Amino acid sequence: MSALKGAVLFGQSGGPTSVINASAAGVFLEALKHEEITAVYGAEHGIKGILEEKLVDIGQEDRHELELLKSTPSSALGSVRYKLKKAEENETDYKRILEVFTKYNIRYFFYNGGNDSMDTCNKISKYLQSKNYECRIIGVPKTVDNDLMGTDHCPGYGSAAKYVATTMMELYLDTHVYNTPMVTVVEIMGRNAGWLAAAAALANYKGLGPDLIYLPERVFSVEGFLEDIKRVAARKNGKVLAAISEGIKDERGRYISEYNSDLARDSFGHAQLGGAAAVLGGIISDQLNVKVRPIEFSLMQRCAAHIASATDREEAFMAGAMAVRYALAGNTDKMVGFARVAGPKYKIEYQLVDLAVTANAEKKVPLAWINPDNSGLTDDFIAYALPLIQGEGEYPTEDGLPRFARLKKIRAKGDK
Amino acid sequence: MSALKGAVLFGQSGGPTSVINASAAGVFLEALKHEEITAVYGAEHGIKGILEEKLVDIGQEDRHELELLKSTPSSALGSVRYKLKKAEENETDYKRILEVFTKYNIRYFFYNGGNDSMDTCNKISKYLQSKNYECRIIGVPKTVDNDLMGTDHCPGYGSAAKYVATTMMELYLDTHVYNTPMVTVVEIMGRNAGWLAAAAALANYKGLGPDLIYLPERVFSVEGFLEDIKRVAARKNGKVLAAISEGIKDERGRYISEYNSDLARDSFGHAQLGGAAAVLGGIISDQLNVKVRPIEFSLMQRCAAHIASATDREEAFMAGAMAVRYALAGNTDKMVGFARVAGPKYKIEYQLVDLAVTANAEKKVPLAWINPDNSGLTDDFIAYALPLIQGEGEYPTEDGLPRFARLKKIRAKGDK
Repeated sequence: MSALKGAVLFGQSGGPTSVINASAAGVFLEALKHEEITAVYGAEHGIKGILEEKLVDIGQEDRHELELLKSTPSSALGSVRYKLKKAEENETDYKRILEVFTKYNIRYFFYNGGNDSMDTCNKISKYLQSKNYECRIIGVPKTVDNDLMGTDHCPGYGSAAKYVATTMMELYLDTHVYNTPMVTVVEIMGRNAGWLAAAAALANYKGLGPDLIYLPERVFSVEGFLEDIKRVAARKNGKVLAAISEGIKDERGRYISEYNSDLARDSFGHAQLGGAAAVLGGIISDQLNVKVRPIEFSLMQRCAAHIASATDREEAFMAGAMAVRYALAGNTDKMVGFARVAGPKYKIEYQLVDLAVTANAEKKVPLAWINPDNSGLTDDFIAYALPLIQGEGEYPTEDGLPRFARLKKIRAKGDK
Repeated sequence: MSALKGAVLFGQSGGPTSVINASAAGVFLEALKHEEITAVYGAEHGIKGILEEKLVDIGQEDRHELELLKSTPSSALGSVRYKLKKAEENETDYKRILEVFTKYNIRYFFYNGGNDSMDTCNKISKYLQSKNYECRIIGVPKTVDNDLMGTDHCPGYGSAAKYVATTMMELYLDTHVYNTPMVTVVEIMGRNAGWLAAAAALANYKGLGPDLIYLPERVFSVEGFLEDIKRVAARKNGKVLAAISEGIKDERGRYISEYNSDLARDSFGHAQLGGAAAVLGGIISDQLNVKVRPIEFSLMQRCAAHIASATDREEAFMAGAMAVRYALAGNTDKMVGFARVAGPKYKIEYQLVDLAVTANAEKKVPLAWINPDNSGLTDDFIAYALPLIQGEGEYPTEDGLPRFARLKKIRAKGDK
């Protein structure tokens, strides 16, 4: 271990989650404890905030408000989707990053995101090393998609999965109140990996889940889907509840959501917006002549902090705190990952994963966990996912509404 | 007061809510206490269950499961949309009702629903009186629309309003994470009355709400809407969050959701489904050339029992219990209503309302409470609505998911 004195910089990147700020709280509250750390900064809108030198001095924030970040959804510092070019192709951004890091004496950089963010960490790390600028860089994982390699699961997934499973149970009850036929199609996030839609199977585990679940890991056949619907309808009095991943694709590799092309226009000639559920709803309505309700969990599934998993929130916080501890211990060029400890009781250990492992891969739902008849997921999936949604993530309220963190220095919100 | 010995019958009607079963629990648990009451029955799918003699003996249910009804969303007995003809026009249904009531010695009938259900109560009551069949009939109000006359507010509204306000705050944070322009249009239930969309203003009260709110109480102008969006976008870096009632109508009285007529077809020629938010999303995308995300709170807003208002749940329970007490005290032909007691602290008193008052009217949001520039609702609305969402409606869990009531005798679900 070597003592490296300097400032911490933390940034958030990619789509937010219900617990992404718990990781921020973990980084901030841990970093503020250590003498080697001379200052703690947050970058507004991730890499962009670094390039534009929009750094927030976290030391000036109230500690209680930083604690409240644990239950405040959606990137408090603002997020960004910005892909760094290779340094060999264009050094401009890298030079600017080195300039800002030098100015603020940034010696610890933590970046919170998914595959792309780990790639960003990796590139910055290599560049700074090539310039002999000592900086320890650790990635903090985050994604409701749960598709990062090198970790048992990702912070953000458990809470989104808890939202999906709970809401599915509630929807099951709601969609069964009338004794008339109706098909409900619920669209769940997941472009290439079906982990989150798979979480609907947790509602099945409690007897109140969808009859059918479709993940992007398997080719989606519209004809097969209609057959499945008819089969369930015949058995269940015309009532069908189906869950689909947004990223389901047909035999030709075309996204079902893309069927809704720019040819979809209403009677006034306006474009129609909608995803795969809206498309399939239209097809069912046309072909099966039955009442259909498409539902999208939309942004709610990734920001419903009021129903966060306590397990997920704690792990997200610890992922941030561990990143700081690992860096102080001399590690760099890694991502914090979770390893599940074998045994009857759920337990994880934190571990370090090479950035390169997560930067260039996507972890998908094992095909062996998906029932071939689209009726859901196997017990292996339930055993995998159930521990991740345990515990009600409590949140402070004020006037019957969530009391989210109020930070003084952050100008990232659109209205400032 | 006169002691009338006989059985209780209870039914649920119309769209469900998060707390509709709390009223059922109120009726059941109160009724089971009294000696005059010889049996307690639930009708499956409301009036239809009476006509088909599908009655459930509630006395055989486990008391603990009946308690769990308080936190179980969506009509546990099953619901129905069935409008009784006038007895003068067709007596068939009424004769059947009298037959079933006589067979089971039903002397107390409680019906839980909205305007139509109160009309049903009224008609049955008049018919039974005309046949000299003594039966005390009390309506129990229920609707997320909050549009019943004769009561300060309706059970079900507070919980749906809490869902809307909380989710709006979460969405506000989510939709502001990127510093790129985006318009988000959120569609909220309410066909003719805008109470539920108005609840989005509670999020504004906490500083994290929509920039624009449109209720069906005012004529909706698409041109005005686009101007409002442009105005807010210019001030807020291109970021706009708008809330609309599903029932907004244009100058000619046409529902905006109907713009999405059967002419809306995708590139495969399939019908496109979607409501007013999808329609307006398309218009914004076409006319303003900006990224748009339409979001529908869909069924979630009326079944999200995990975020029920404790105040609403308790009032819903008491509305059921009070119906029984009022009937035992000799009242009939009434609905249980809430009167708000004047004073600095929120307090309600229960009262009886003539069925005819609620059967034929809709209560709308006062125009004076709606800001003319569509920026939201006035302080008078906040003072009205805020007390209704107070308290976190706790719910028992099992495996990290809600533990809903499991009733032995109820076959109402579609899959039985």
